[in-house]
Amino acid sequence: MNLKEALEFAKKFQFSALTTLNNDNHPETRAMVNLLNPEVCPHLVDYFNKNDKIYIMTNTSSAKTEHIKKNPKSSLYFVDYATFEGLLLMGDIKEIHDEKIKGDLWHDSWKVYYAEGKDGGDFSVLEFTPNKYKLYRDMAVEEKEI
Amino acid sequence: MNLKEALEFAKKFQFSALTTLNNDNHPETRAMVNLLNPEVCPHLVDYFNKNDKIYIMTNTSSAKTEHIKKNPKSSLYFVDYATFEGLLLMGDIKEIHDEKIKGDLWHDSWKVYYAEGKDGGDFSVLEFTPNKYKLYRDMAVEEKEI
Repeated sequence: MNLKEALEFAKKFQFSALTTLNNDNHPETRAMVNLLNPEVCPHLVDYFNKNDKIYIMTNTSSAKTEHIKKNPKSSLYFVDYATFEGLLLMGDIKEIHDEKIKGDLWHDSWKVYYAEGKDGGDFSVLEFTPNKYKLYRDMAVEEKEI
Repeated sequence: MNLKEALEFAKKFQFSALTTLNNDNHPETRAMVNLLNPEVCPHLVDYFNKNDKIYIMTNTSSAKTEHIKKNPKSSLYFVDYATFEGLLLMGDIKEIHDEKIKGDLWHDSWKVYYAEGKDGGDFSVLEFTPNKYKLYRDMAVEEKEI
């Protein structure tokens, strides 16, 4: 599985579980909206067909944006509990400050999460770069560098 | 939320996402069957009403049993993607070798996962002890020591 195939697989899932390491280097996991999913973000289908990137939106004020400043090690896990099919991506994560990218991703409906909007100060975009994966499928695990 | 309340909350979920730290101290997450759930393990309802413990069954040969020998830091995450309600437990995990406990938990239907059975050498039980939680509910996060 190369990066393109991993992203294609990840598009099936509406949510991911993002794990960062806190100040004690203790793992913390929370659910994130999967922007790659066409049902979740119809406005980004073309974008992610052209860009092999994993972006995650979050509140700037969230604990995870602090964690990743100190430690970029993270993982992103997609799972279907009905089939136990899952994809674990391991890699590094960072906040990006590219206003062009943030503008390309933004959708006005996201004011539900970011009341002040795209430029209101609490909308952050994280970029996750995988370097290894584990694919759980058919009762087996496939593990490889990306 | 004390330990008892946390366990009661966790019983709602059929699966958890367990994160351990690998040899590079990189987080790795995978889905686990939640033995606390009454539908998943009807034979353990009485047991977990009497014992405020979190046990997780796994293959002895799995990567996670190696991870936790070197680093017990781990987290256990329960989430309902329909409501975004979630519980993150942070704590330590270890393999236990108490044959009484392993026998109390064991169910013969688990031969699907452990072909050689309870004493076949690939059935392990892990004990997870939480010391902190984050409860995601009603668009808010509640965080506390346990």
